[in-house]
Amino acid sequence: MSHKKFEETTIETKPIYQGKIISLQVDTVRLPNGNTSTREIVKHPGAVAVLALVDGKMLVVEQFRKALEKSQVEIPAGKLDPGEDPLDAARRELEEETGYRAGSIRLLHSFYTSPGFADEIVHLYLAEDLTVGEVNPDEDEFLEIEAITLEQAQQYMKEWRISDAKTITAVYAWQVYQLTGRI
Amino acid sequence: MSHKKFEETTIETKPIYQGKIISLQVDTVRLPNGNTSTREIVKHPGAVAVLALVDGKMLVVEQFRKALEKSQVEIPAGKLDPGEDPLDAARRELEEETGYRAGSIRLLHSFYTSPGFADEIVHLYLAEDLTVGEVNPDEDEFLEIEAITLEQAQQYMKEWRISDAKTITAVYAWQVYQLTGRI
Repeated sequence: MSHKKFEETTIETKPIYQGKIISLQVDTVRLPNGNTSTREIVKHPGAVAVLALVDGKMLVVEQFRKALEKSQVEIPAGKLDPGEDPLDAARRELEEETGYRAGSIRLLHSFYTSPGFADEIVHLYLAEDLTVGEVNPDEDEFLEIEAITLEQAQQYMKEWRISDAKTITAVYAWQVYQLTGRI
Repeated sequence: MSHKKFEETTIETKPIYQGKIISLQVDTVRLPNGNTSTREIVKHPGAVAVLALVDGKMLVVEQFRKALEKSQVEIPAGKLDPGEDPLDAARRELEEETGYRAGSIRLLHSFYTSPGFADEIVHLYLAEDLTVGEVNPDEDEFLEIEAITLEQAQQYMKEWRISDAKTITAVYAWQVYQLTGRI
């Protein structure tokens, strides 16, 4: 099956903003029926996130999210540096944010977070066999580390302290891992 | 525990763009250590998505995603209309996109898709006891409906035909539902 089904061809791309992290453009497109429309598109460098398991608990970090005007509990995550391999980024972010090094690490899924308006992709890794390394958050990054059980994670979801797509995906993946032994 | 831990207070908000669907602003913020920084923030009206189960299969729609320059298989979803109740929106989008009406429908989770740069929230519903209604996609909306098993959904994930956060979350939720009878 075609990966371009119902393709919208670009008539014009209008750059709107080039920021530190994201950029915004508006594309004028031709639809399959010949009509034209516009698409507002956010470009993002991509990110990694890590389901890191230690002694039957998942490592999470609490941090303030300005876009939401509140703090959130999330799995360790961060943007890709230019040209960086996602696996290297996952190892780097895990150690920078939590101080743990992964003895084994592998990709679970890569997913687009908001395909309606953004190209952001998150590469979600499973990290196990953790050993203590060195905490080294980015300058001006403020976060608090915690290790929580599956039951606590599910409770945090009920309390809205965990409420982002990558962390909820990770909690489900972990639950399936516990139920089936496979992930 | 505070929901404002490590709060970043706003010094200035600079509107950059007001589009059809999203808007972009850049906030200058004061960090907990007194330093200042900027935050690029996309505002979005919010969306609904529906895990709709019929005869042991999940309804999905394939559509072109301009931000990704490819088509994707996703669960039925759409933006909230201004002032619209998310439950009403979920019923509306399910029927518009697939032609099915939900005999029972309930919220599974609400989650932020990209808390690092956007306020978009997706309300994910479970719809069961489906009956045939009327397909009525938005003007200029092109999509193809399919009903797939859990095994097919997992295969689509391997093939990158399913690769967005809300659909992967829905597939995991469905797997847990099958494994435990609860969701």
